[in-house]
Amino acid sequence: MSQQPIQNFYKDDVAICYGCGKHNADGLHIKTFWDGEIGRSTFTPRPEHTAFPGFVYGGLIASLIDCHSIGTAIAAAYDAAGRAPGTDPEITCVTGNLNVSYLKPTPMGVELVLEARIKEMGERKIVVTCSVYAQDVETVRAETVAVRVPSRMFKKEAD
Amino acid sequence: MSQQPIQNFYKDDVAICYGCGKHNADGLHIKTFWDGEIGRSTFTPRPEHTAFPGFVYGGLIASLIDCHSIGTAIAAAYDAAGRAPGTDPEITCVTGNLNVSYLKPTPMGVELVLEARIKEMGERKIVVTCSVYAQDVETVRAETVAVRVPSRMFKKEAD
Repeated sequence: MSQQPIQNFYKDDVAICYGCGKHNADGLHIKTFWDGEIGRSTFTPRPEHTAFPGFVYGGLIASLIDCHSIGTAIAAAYDAAGRAPGTDPEITCVTGNLNVSYLKPTPMGVELVLEARIKEMGERKIVVTCSVYAQDVETVRAETVAVRVPSRMFKKEAD
Repeated sequence: MSQQPIQNFYKDDVAICYGCGKHNADGLHIKTFWDGEIGRSTFTPRPEHTAFPGFVYGGLIASLIDCHSIGTAIAAAYDAAGRAPGTDPEITCVTGNLNVSYLKPTPMGVELVLEARIKEMGERKIVVTCSVYAQDVETVRAETVAVRVPSRMFKKEAD
């Protein structure tokens, strides 16, 4: 298990993601720990993260899956390249597709555990599966397509 | 175009959704206006809703799509039944699947426009397509499966 989450190695000038950026003061601070096979993350929803009484908001769960799956893809890609995370040239990804199946309602008041695995490691696309567990019960399952990009410092089309 | 968003008709005791609940003080307050053919919603992301510099967080966009597509499904189902929204017996849905394709980065600093349409109106499942536009450019496209349930006042399995 890596000692530090992969998000700690994201470059400072782009680490403002609401989901996982270390420089977003209002964000969720999702953290991904990669052990060479599985990306693991835990998150306890805040009281306001409800869908309906007693259950977690699906949009919050989609957000956790998004950042954690992208983090897992990046960590695994460094691993596949035989390089330490954060070394140059930067390896980074953005989300191409996020496909989330809500198997059953996810209860509030417990720590959620996310486990992500690499289904396909391509040169351009990395496919990641992710399950969300509440008290050892899988409540949500997802597949995410991470698209490798040279940098997250995009230029606007109009620039 | 309906004068009131469908979310105004959600029952008070369950209207605490982080995405669209009128009784969630910290939530996003997503609103869906149904005109008999298209569900429309607008949302201007808050400054903290960034993915990377200048662009909107994908998890926020997934959240907007989730609540707006479910709202569209509910409004359309009342319409299909020939009933005014909010009349008894309640028609409500939860999200079964959310499949979001990010076509291009979505810029910060502009109002986003969501348009949702009914692809399939079933007794148990309603399939909704949704596009997100930023300055008339479609940046995200999604398909959501809304599952009809008798009520959002779920009981926990352990109860």
